[in-house]
Amino acid sequence: MITFDLRRPDRTIEPALRHKVDNLTKPKGSLGKLEHLAIQIGLIQQTLTPRLSNPCNILFAADHGIISEGVSVSPKEVTWQQLGHFAKGGAGINFLCRQHGFRLVLVDAGVDYDIPAGHGIIDRKVGRSTRNFLHGPAMTHDELDLCLRHGAEIVDMVADEGCNVVSFGEMGSGNTSASSMWMHAFAGTPLPQCVGAGAGLDRSGIDHKLNVLTRAWKNYSGDGSVSDLMAWFGGYEMAMAVGGMLRAAERGMVIIVDGFIMTSCMLAASRLYPEVTEYAVYGHQGDESGHRLALEALGAMPLLHLDLRLGEGSGAVCAYPILQSAVRMINEMDSFADVNVTKYFD
Amino acid sequence: MITFDLRRPDRTIEPALRHKVDNLTKPKGSLGKLEHLAIQIGLIQQTLTPRLSNPCNILFAADHGIISEGVSVSPKEVTWQQLGHFAKGGAGINFLCRQHGFRLVLVDAGVDYDIPAGHGIIDRKVGRSTRNFLHGPAMTHDELDLCLRHGAEIVDMVADEGCNVVSFGEMGSGNTSASSMWMHAFAGTPLPQCVGAGAGLDRSGIDHKLNVLTRAWKNYSGDGSVSDLMAWFGGYEMAMAVGGMLRAAERGMVIIVDGFIMTSCMLAASRLYPEVTEYAVYGHQGDESGHRLALEALGAMPLLHLDLRLGEGSGAVCAYPILQSAVRMINEMDSFADVNVTKYFD
Repeated sequence: MITFDLRRPDRTIEPALRHKVDNLTKPKGSLGKLEHLAIQIGLIQQTLTPRLSNPCNILFAADHGIISEGVSVSPKEVTWQQLGHFAKGGAGINFLCRQHGFRLVLVDAGVDYDIPAGHGIIDRKVGRSTRNFLHGPAMTHDELDLCLRHGAEIVDMVADEGCNVVSFGEMGSGNTSASSMWMHAFAGTPLPQCVGAGAGLDRSGIDHKLNVLTRAWKNYSGDGSVSDLMAWFGGYEMAMAVGGMLRAAERGMVIIVDGFIMTSCMLAASRLYPEVTEYAVYGHQGDESGHRLALEALGAMPLLHLDLRLGEGSGAVCAYPILQSAVRMINEMDSFADVNVTKYFD
Repeated sequence: MITFDLRRPDRTIEPALRHKVDNLTKPKGSLGKLEHLAIQIGLIQQTLTPRLSNPCNILFAADHGIISEGVSVSPKEVTWQQLGHFAKGGAGINFLCRQHGFRLVLVDAGVDYDIPAGHGIIDRKVGRSTRNFLHGPAMTHDELDLCLRHGAEIVDMVADEGCNVVSFGEMGSGNTSASSMWMHAFAGTPLPQCVGAGAGLDRSGIDHKLNVLTRAWKNYSGDGSVSDLMAWFGGYEMAMAVGGMLRAAERGMVIIVDGFIMTSCMLAASRLYPEVTEYAVYGHQGDESGHRLALEALGAMPLLHLDLRLGEGSGAVCAYPILQSAVRMINEMDSFADVNVTKYFD
């Protein structure tokens, strides 16, 4: 299995960062989370003058075998249809990427459809949908390894082109089910609290989904290792995102985590390499039940609370201006030493 | 007293707006508050294709007589110093205005200092600080009327130059005290819940502030009308913001409400003209205790929760990209009728 070389940011610079933020011309702490973010980004980049450059949203799409159990209101063909739609520019993630200057990188991680060439969709298809994890592992360990490698390689590509802040998005009918299983496996949250409406299940649909997932958990007969649980219940797009997150952290990039599915991926990544969370910023707390608990399991401080539940990376990209504000704050605000303003606090 | 001609937006267009939003290529409701915002802005502008143009943050500064009671950790000279600092460009509100393309309009509403000309600060000084409301009204009814007129006139100026979305900011040592009184008067919230740390009071400082404000409320001997309560406890900068909000609503502009002080101003404005709230979007829920309750009194849905407590309009300007996202959503996303994506919900 591919390994990564993750280190926590060196904290030697932290007092200087904190001193700089505390001496900007404002009541101490009055810019709240912007101050925390500025310090975190400064630590990641090991500088008092952090910069965000060439932001990217890498969107992995794949299908899930579990969907044949009727766990999603969204039929399987929506995965490839939406992937094509992203390529054409008229979906939710597109306007957000345009608004905030994000490059949108589309990756076929395992969609059950022959995606035509010529639309800019990167082909890293590991299979045509995972298998149904109710009856056995969704993917092999070799497939998991391949996903991690592909995710890392795509991050290398954007990083080599100057990107130092990346978000990950997903498209995959059925992937809230896979994410619920990862959350249960990696955060220990009871399954009923991990299961929600996904793209729009009603109460009886959620009950059915929970019933299927509970049986799947009982049927699990692997070795209980993180990688085995990832392979058994995961999705190709989710595993690629994990590989991407780990490589991004390895390269000292800022990772903006999107909603429920990407938070589950960050949970999985953190079980492999706990250091990864130091590079993570959480874009939003979404509307999918369970997302709040997954965020709590990570000790996360989500930036937006807009009741989003679209996926695609939308909540991460939507939060980007907050990161930009934090970076502008530390670079552009005067300090009390610069100007004639009475410092009225310690 | 100046009067305003406020009307609620005509709701005839609402079903068409809702139909448009519900048929964008996403699970229904999955863009959460962006969907609510798009409908609200569409109603305000009476169009299915809303636009935001030439955003402005109008920042009113003034001093408060109540500060002589020791209710603020921020000394009085900070008001004029910060106003000068805003004019130079190195304060918190400056980087946010630069980031989001806001024009920053600075107005001396009643600062106790001779602001030199030539720095772009508009002189609408109604007095050199209000009077101490512990012992009598902070301003006369004529002064209140003048403030409302000045605020309206400044909004006319920016509206005539193409602005259709406006936020209001403030600078005024002591103005959380004045805002607590307005909140108590206009929302009926018990005073202890209206009083917080302001720029950084400790526990005993907050207790003293509450003691002073409780005595001031007992000493009130006016006629109990909205305008009398506004004049008795208000600040010049706050009254100008109320005038600005009312004119902005009258002209069909979107109003982005900032933190605790501006929320108190919206409360006051809504007691004069309830229709004003239909034009209001709430930028954030700040860190000042009482702000949450003031927002609840208005039935507000704050967009950001970043623990900001800077004032200056910072939380309103910081939230602007969310409004832009909402407008882009309704204008740029494809509908199911446009593209080949299965609509998998009703």
